[in-house]
Amino acid sequence: MGDKPIWEQIGSSFVQHYYQLFDADRTQLGAIYIDASCLTWEGQQFQGKAAIVEKLTSLPFQKIQHSITAQDHQPTPDSCILSMVVGQLKADDDQVLGFHQTFLLKNFQGAWVCTNEVFRLALHN
Amino acid sequence: MGDKPIWEQIGSSFVQHYYQLFDADRTQLGAIYIDASCLTWEGQQFQGKAAIVEKLTSLPFQKIQHSITAQDHQPTPDSCILSMVVGQLKADDDQVLGFHQTFLLKNFQGAWVCTNEVFRLALHN
Repeated sequence: MGDKPIWEQIGSSFVQHYYQLFDADRTQLGAIYIDASCLTWEGQQFQGKAAIVEKLTSLPFQKIQHSITAQDHQPTPDSCILSMVVGQLKADDDQVLGFHQTFLLKNFQGAWVCTNEVFRLALHN
Repeated sequence: MGDKPIWEQIGSSFVQHYYQLFDADRTQLGAIYIDASCLTWEGQQFQGKAAIVEKLTSLPFQKIQHSITAQDHQPTPDSCILSMVVGQLKADDDQVLGFHQTFLLKNFQGAWVCTNEVFRLALHN
């Protein structure tokens, strides 16, 4: 960890935290968003902590497990961190599906929050 | 087009322009980057217009054709535009491969440029 640039450490810590929380209890995800946050989930748009958490908690499965295949992080000119994740997920007893997800992280009042998030299943690859 | 939010119009115009240029003559892509731009291409990192164009033009194929399956755009708190693209590409006579690509666009001296770009083939889905 010590040899990696700080933005890569922050990005990969965020990604680990996000999927652990998502898989364990996604009602707790609110802490990572702010009211300006945007989520696009399979083409549907949501804005704000409340709307985003409502969407994530109303997804129609009981159990989910993500595994990450690749993650890339970059610093941006506005001191944010851009992260793109490629992986697979298994929801309930459904078949394993590929997914891709992008996050933009920003330091807000001393904490790293997710201001932008886009999720797509890899159905068309 | 007129009914869509401005950030979606800008994002989708950029995406159309990028892939047209990439498929027609990728040596011309330099105009969309600045010296602060970052590219991560299949996990390899490049920074700056010159290094990015050198990477893109040295990719080992003569012909390439992209087709876009889905694209999502969002405004960010720093007045940037985040775009995630999912699609397929065919390079030379190789098989068709899925890919995902994320762009962060910023208005720089009156023009929209790409400050951050991440590309991954969908090999593991």
